Amino acid sequence: MSSVKAFGAASSESDLAQLSIDRRDVQPNDVKIDILYCGVCHSDIHTVHNDWGGTKYPSVPGHEIIGRVTEVGNKVSNYKVGDLVGVGCLVDSCRTCASCQEDLEQYCENGMVPTYNGADKHLGGHTFGGYSETIVVDKDFVLKVPENIDPKAAAPLLCAGITTWSPLRHWNVKKGDKVGVIGLGGLGHMGVKFANALGARVVMITSSESKRETAKELGAHDVLISKNSDEMKKHANSFDFLLNTIPVKHDLNPYVGLLKRDATMCMVGAIEPLEPMHGGLVILKRRNIAGSLIGGIKETQEMLDFCGEHNIVCDIEMINMQDINEAYERVMKADVKYRFVIDMKSLKE
Amino acid sequence: MSSVKAFGAASSESDLAQLSIDRRDVQPNDVKIDILYCGVCHSDIHTVHNDWGGTKYPSVPGHEIIGRVTEVGNKVSNYKVGDLVGVGCLVDSCRTCASCQEDLEQYCENGMVPTYNGADKHLGGHTFGGYSETIVVDKDFVLKVPENIDPKAAAPLLCAGITTWSPLRHWNVKKGDKVGVIGLGGLGHMGVKFANALGARVVMITSSESKRETAKELGAHDVLISKNSDEMKKHANSFDFLLNTIPVKHDLNPYVGLLKRDATMCMVGAIEPLEPMHGGLVILKRRNIAGSLIGGIKETQEMLDFCGEHNIVCDIEMINMQDINEAYERVMKADVKYRFVIDMKSLKE
Repeated sequence: MSSVKAFGAASSESDLAQLSIDRRDVQPNDVKIDILYCGVCHSDIHTVHNDWGGTKYPSVPGHEIIGRVTEVGNKVSNYKVGDLVGVGCLVDSCRTCASCQEDLEQYCENGMVPTYNGADKHLGGHTFGGYSETIVVDKDFVLKVPENIDPKAAAPLLCAGITTWSPLRHWNVKKGDKVGVIGLGGLGHMGVKFANALGARVVMITSSESKRETAKELGAHDVLISKNSDEMKKHANSFDFLLNTIPVKHDLNPYVGLLKRDATMCMVGAIEPLEPMHGGLVILKRRNIAGSLIGGIKETQEMLDFCGEHNIVCDIEMINMQDINEAYERVMKADVKYRFVIDMKSLKE
Repeated sequence: MSSVKAFGAASSESDLAQLSIDRRDVQPNDVKIDILYCGVCHSDIHTVHNDWGGTKYPSVPGHEIIGRVTEVGNKVSNYKVGDLVGVGCLVDSCRTCASCQEDLEQYCENGMVPTYNGADKHLGGHTFGGYSETIVVDKDFVLKVPENIDPKAAAPLLCAGITTWSPLRHWNVKKGDKVGVIGLGGLGHMGVKFANALGARVVMITSSESKRETAKELGAHDVLISKNSDEMKKHANSFDFLLNTIPVKHDLNPYVGLLKRDATMCMVGAIEPLEPMHGGLVILKRRNIAGSLIGGIKETQEMLDFCGEHNIVCDIEMINMQDINEAYERVMKADVKYRFVIDMKSLKE
């Protein structure tokens, strides 16, 4: 066990500040990682503020981790010192339930272990995330990061990336499909890039006219302003798939009406109570409303490999660790294009 | 064109009473049917009362029609005088759109023609339903009814039956699946019978303890009282499919939590605004909330054939046409086991 520098919150009221946390010594199946970059996710903020309840303090968030391997356990053969690796939202799971057996560890029926705020079965207490110098993770939950992509801009792939990739693949988005991505933020901008790379005709659906040009630069073929009811009517019944990335309470009804018969809208952002839905919208066209949670380790690796092949990364703004509280303020105002990434060198200095 | 006796409402405020309607003369593709029985559906009441808006008066409801063929057009080869036939919720569609081409006329993209309150393209005005002596229907929208089942009890198969059959088949309910049927009424009791006949382990989910025994008699293997939170917890994450037949505004949240990962709850009753749903319930287990509308002609025929083979009919209470207003009162109080069927002989006398 070693003590390492980290940034976290002592309570739901406190700002994030430097503190010390313990990392376990490397076990036979472990990989020790020197953290280079860590993305800033909405979930970090929700956890720090205890918005979902259940936050254990001190809370060290961060689950979009990129780093270099500095040590491996004696049973680790697939990683070596110096490898560029990533760690996402989970660091362990039961490995025996149906979901784990199907490479869907994120849905582990005995409860996956989140990278932060989970039960730490090695040291007791709870897990600490990536806003820190190092992390020690079981090899089965470590990802290989292609060396040809910018590692800073790869960090948010570990959450924002896989969260949008997984549903696009699960619902089999393919060449020629008309796919709508609702909401242009950290998740939405990756949804546009991935759907485009998968060959779909991508429509960015946003309430904000000001995002029209940026959306097209990201790969949207068309932009639909959700406040414009004439435009919404023109697109009614026309989408093969909708990826809904809105992270707050909202009204699903206008979006559901955009779906073709038998098509699905998948929600990935709003772990929140929603506005009342009208049953007729699903009944009259046999439509589906679904949700999807991050992704499994195997498909996260597939996504990273795909990003390497297609040279896809996130659009980011770099910050120093000391700027984290201001960054949180800006994330909450959706004032970031599209993800903050912490340069962890700043913590180590 | 001939004038025939019918029962209908002159306005949304008026009780149903006898009136005269016009039926077209038999065209080359038409089948003329002497109506023997007609089921009483919730939709009849909603339409008569203009609950959904758009009701055209006089309104003659009825889309669970059983009768005998009395005349066929010169291009009709698949029906002959004397055949026992049925007519369900639709009497025409465009036949050219993608949905029609896929035998899903109920989702016709140019608008299917409902059996009542639709646009009558032969006589102008609007279509009149089965609360009448006779009906003339295009052969492609007429169903063959197996002679071995009780024709009275077969009437509600044309709506309550197909509405539950179609989603059970579409979501591939099969031997060994754990299927919940929510709500024990006209739709729910058929959902239980069909799911049982398809080999599923059927759980009736009802708020009413008093329905426990009846549900088992209908074929439920188990009964789950939705008000009992301990029982609900025991069944959490365990269902392969839920058929939600509740016909009114309700809270989906307790039911969604019963679904396994990746499983679907399909709504067939509530063409209504629902209570607010929590996004986390679909996101955290990749669950689906869907809807389904009656069924296509081909699958309605398949259902009727299946009913013939398995000797499945509805549980009904017979009424005379003159008792319709009282029957409506009782349907609205859910005081019927489980469907009223009008003996149309009473109208003709």
